[in-house]
Amino acid sequence: MKATVIHGERDIRLETVPDPILRTETDAIVRVVAACVCGSDLWPYRGVTPTNEPHRIGHEFVGIVEEAGSAVANVREGDFVIAPFYYCDNTCINCRNGVSTSCLNGGWWGAEGRDGNFVDGAQGERVRVPLADGTLVATPQVPEAGLVPHLLTLADVMGTGHHAAVSAGVTRGSTVAVVGDGAVGLCAVLASHRLGASRIVAMSRHADRQAIAREFGATDVVEERGTEGAAVVKELFDGIGADFVLECVGTKESMDQAIRSTRPGGMVGYVGVPAGGPELPVRSLFTNNVGVRGGVAPVRGYIEELLPEVLAGTLAPGRVFDRELPLSDVAQAYAAMDDRTATKVLLRP
Amino acid sequence: MKATVIHGERDIRLETVPDPILRTETDAIVRVVAACVCGSDLWPYRGVTPTNEPHRIGHEFVGIVEEAGSAVANVREGDFVIAPFYYCDNTCINCRNGVSTSCLNGGWWGAEGRDGNFVDGAQGERVRVPLADGTLVATPQVPEAGLVPHLLTLADVMGTGHHAAVSAGVTRGSTVAVVGDGAVGLCAVLASHRLGASRIVAMSRHADRQAIAREFGATDVVEERGTEGAAVVKELFDGIGADFVLECVGTKESMDQAIRSTRPGGMVGYVGVPAGGPELPVRSLFTNNVGVRGGVAPVRGYIEELLPEVLAGTLAPGRVFDRELPLSDVAQAYAAMDDRTATKVLLRP
Repeated sequence: MKATVIHGERDIRLETVPDPILRTETDAIVRVVAACVCGSDLWPYRGVTPTNEPHRIGHEFVGIVEEAGSAVANVREGDFVIAPFYYCDNTCINCRNGVSTSCLNGGWWGAEGRDGNFVDGAQGERVRVPLADGTLVATPQVPEAGLVPHLLTLADVMGTGHHAAVSAGVTRGSTVAVVGDGAVGLCAVLASHRLGASRIVAMSRHADRQAIAREFGATDVVEERGTEGAAVVKELFDGIGADFVLECVGTKESMDQAIRSTRPGGMVGYVGVPAGGPELPVRSLFTNNVGVRGGVAPVRGYIEELLPEVLAGTLAPGRVFDRELPLSDVAQAYAAMDDRTATKVLLRP
Repeated sequence: MKATVIHGERDIRLETVPDPILRTETDAIVRVVAACVCGSDLWPYRGVTPTNEPHRIGHEFVGIVEEAGSAVANVREGDFVIAPFYYCDNTCINCRNGVSTSCLNGGWWGAEGRDGNFVDGAQGERVRVPLADGTLVATPQVPEAGLVPHLLTLADVMGTGHHAAVSAGVTRGSTVAVVGDGAVGLCAVLASHRLGASRIVAMSRHADRQAIAREFGATDVVEERGTEGAAVVKELFDGIGADFVLECVGTKESMDQAIRSTRPGGMVGYVGVPAGGPELPVRSLFTNNVGVRGGVAPVRGYIEELLPEVLAGTLAPGRVFDRELPLSDVAQAYAAMDDRTATKVLLRP
């Protein structure tokens, strides 16, 4: 089959790789219907994190179950399934605590699994899914084509934006500012709107992304960044800042901007993968009673929470995909996201 | 009158200072019935934070209103009052948001106020209280002597321990570990017990403090510290750690210990004044979805919440005072807390 392999900085190739096979009775094989490129895929693409040897890549996909191991009970051949951006058993104590990203038996796509077997990346034609019962969520029936982009966001970006809002504790009637206008930031706007925030500031200087943010429920757009951006947010909210600020980038600058935009006693919810390991300034957090909560989003649990609304058409996050390409053009998909001519690219094998 | 002045490292003196007078119509003058020494007073005492010039010190007191300005409506001459460890108007937006430590018009004892008038420290015979209506909480009647130590803890340590538990989000049936066995840490144990935690680990290696912790509701005591201590806490709780960890010290080591003792998805509530400005390790917080929330505790609001239980005798945090001295022996009080022969010393002017 064909699958995407990253060889180094700005070197993405679609290659012929072995077809996946069931390795254990809890595996399933899924034919990928749609995959996509994540903002975090750009870190190795840009060389920010090194690629020491070529490896498979991609961690977001939806598809059709082609084959299921004998111990798999929750999904079966022909099911349309959504996979989170990791696999998990959904039964261990961390999963039960709602933190399936810390599953004691889970792992990551495109890497060696705990049992020594390689686990496929998602930007390919097929994927071997370990712990299929815990990992996959099947839709009640195969959805119509128009729903696929929306369902695909549940694999990562919509659940991750939702996690930012949930981690911050966004409540009905509260005020929110979102730092980052990538797909996750836009989904964080949508999640805050869904949770009933009365005022939502999108911090963005790209007209196309501002437009999506407005569609998703942003009431205000702030183009300024850094200290200046934080000052504008403060002014918008009684001179003290927003109740909740959602950090969806992962740099030191974006986290500083988020913390400075938060009112005393408020919360920063953060989901931007920390790039370069910036530390948090405890002294200013302490003085202002600003809390920080978030991390790698346990989207597996959120799929079940958000799926009914997506199927009903009342939650439509798929708008973040502003380009669609065949899997054969995967290198072009990375380039478009890298140069920001696309917010997020959907890939069809 | 007499009041305490710090001159430098381990140099505490009781000196004659001017009697306070009403400076504005919102002031009150309070005769101090009891004051005490705080763990954070030990930072300048030990020279960890420098004392550039002699200044008044102390920020915890209860007393009797001797005189109230013409605009003061909530307290009057003869009232027994509890003051938080700061003053505040209790009406600004930050106060209304429950963060009175960030009061837009507030300030700190023993320092120059916003209007340029000096504000007394608490370790003295009398205190001029700015914004008396916002700052002071009067008891329904003058309490019996035995209640005074308990009431005095509401000025800081009980409210601060409570803030650690509230910031972490301690819930009924949850598991808690408390880092720090000073008065605040012990009060954090008591607060967790009050909030219904099912299991509470006190991290302490002092027999006398362990005993108070047990009285306050600790179910387990862990004597190990640092990485070793965190490993023991993890083992106590399914190998993953406690739901909530309360950091009540303020050093880099204690914060690291707290973060490592918290289960994935758990919360650190912290109230230890950060000494030396340790930064928070965002990468490990992110990976494990461990949140951090806390800061300088807005105890003004907690006084009203906790006071009825103290008056009813169902909440008895005054046990943290294991020594009582006349104000004239204030230097001895500092020395006893410094060498840990006392957990917390109550001072009587």
